[in-house]
Amino acid sequence: MRFVEKLQNASRKNNSLVCVGLDTDPQKIPKHLLREEDPTLAFNQKIIDSTSDLVCAYKPNMAFYEAQGSRGWESLRKTCSYIPKEIPIIIDAKRGDIGNTARMYAKAIFEELKGDAVTVSPYMGEDAVSPFLEYEDKCAFVLCLTSNKGANDFQLSEVEGKPFYEIVAEKVLSWNAKGNCGLVVGATHPEQLKRIRQIAPSLPFLIPGIGAQAGDVESTVKFGTDENREMAVINSSRGILYASDQEDFDGAARQEALRLRDKINLHRGR
Amino acid sequence: MRFVEKLQNASRKNNSLVCVGLDTDPQKIPKHLLREEDPTLAFNQKIIDSTSDLVCAYKPNMAFYEAQGSRGWESLRKTCSYIPKEIPIIIDAKRGDIGNTARMYAKAIFEELKGDAVTVSPYMGEDAVSPFLEYEDKCAFVLCLTSNKGANDFQLSEVEGKPFYEIVAEKVLSWNAKGNCGLVVGATHPEQLKRIRQIAPSLPFLIPGIGAQAGDVESTVKFGTDENREMAVINSSRGILYASDQEDFDGAARQEALRLRDKINLHRGR
Repeated sequence: MRFVEKLQNASRKNNSLVCVGLDTDPQKIPKHLLREEDPTLAFNQKIIDSTSDLVCAYKPNMAFYEAQGSRGWESLRKTCSYIPKEIPIIIDAKRGDIGNTARMYAKAIFEELKGDAVTVSPYMGEDAVSPFLEYEDKCAFVLCLTSNKGANDFQLSEVEGKPFYEIVAEKVLSWNAKGNCGLVVGATHPEQLKRIRQIAPSLPFLIPGIGAQAGDVESTVKFGTDENREMAVINSSRGILYASDQEDFDGAARQEALRLRDKINLHRGR
Repeated sequence: MRFVEKLQNASRKNNSLVCVGLDTDPQKIPKHLLREEDPTLAFNQKIIDSTSDLVCAYKPNMAFYEAQGSRGWESLRKTCSYIPKEIPIIIDAKRGDIGNTARMYAKAIFEELKGDAVTVSPYMGEDAVSPFLEYEDKCAFVLCLTSNKGANDFQLSEVEGKPFYEIVAEKVLSWNAKGNCGLVVGATHPEQLKRIRQIAPSLPFLIPGIGAQAGDVESTVKFGTDENREMAVINSSRGILYASDQEDFDGAARQEALRLRDKINLHRGR
């Protein structure tokens, strides 16, 4: 099944655009879990159990697992295999390297971890992205306009009369022959989000930056979705994962995911 | 000890600007090594043993280890700890993400793997790079102009009257308060290499693209080094690692590293 179809199915079944970002930090998880053999995995399993009927995707963030070395890699692999088969896994990796190296990253992410999608950086151009696109049923979300302050350093610069992020969006469209590209567009730039949606009306958008980074939900839904109010994957990580540091953290995470889903759906009219 | 000092010491001791890129692919290593418990590690150890008096640095490429999952991560960690203490390790990772995530990548690379330097992508701007720069004795080589075809897609675009890679070089200079930034500049663009060296006269440059990618050695040395004909880390991966697929692969790798070192030194006048 193609990625956009898998995403649409999960999103419709759970009536949700919420993606839970699994940025799992052993220093932030409830203390009682540290007794478990693999606290990171135990935490993720509880979060998945309590939210899998409320989300359209999960997004594990590679950095948090790599910081724990090979043990972290195992926690990540087991987390991915624990996620219900019908829910897409977006591996947040922001990789970007020359062809023979990108092929190895694609193998790591799509074959070793069995992710459904990956985030990639556009800086090195088409041949750094195309090895990911050779996997027809997977998806590469290319960084377009990110939610952080540093987005101002280059992404908003003017290139040939247009903002750089627009050039990126246009290039990505031209790489989308197999229909397996997406864009990362931060919720902290509503006006630009609107413009990028005009450029790429039907691409899936991965939208970070609500929650801890204070992006606005209403404009994110209004400008980030496609004409059917779909194809926006709206991520929240810290706000859901660490809603409570007590034993009931999974219940608190569920409440937070539910609250966000409903808030988003209010602006989708459903 | 600061990174540039460590690099200079290794480079002077071995009279070398050669960096061996450890892009170790189990499919390409000599067949007899597949009997070893950890073929990747066994291969790397032989390569290191046979070249460590000829190089200024080693550059393991994360992708090749990640493609082997947690086992690959262990091979990488053990490879890093096997490299002689006085030789800098540049972890080629091309990471770039928001602050709290970049901090986790920095932890993975500088603490878990004990790398001395890392390659990072500039696309997400200063706050995606600064967590790496908080480690004063480490170094972040920021992608400026890469050696692949895709460099044409964005890096050579004109931004505010200048090529984009120049804007990146200038920004990186402004991030260099602690003296721990470097630039990645491909050997396949000699004219631009010259220009970037003018912008950043004393920064260490990591220069890929000779060998398999056909960059020219003479112009790389002439334009890529600083005023003392130093501070260029000239990488070769495949050309050295896979000089032979027979039992004498380490001897062949040594010959190739020696040949490259001497060819480079010819143009340094030493």
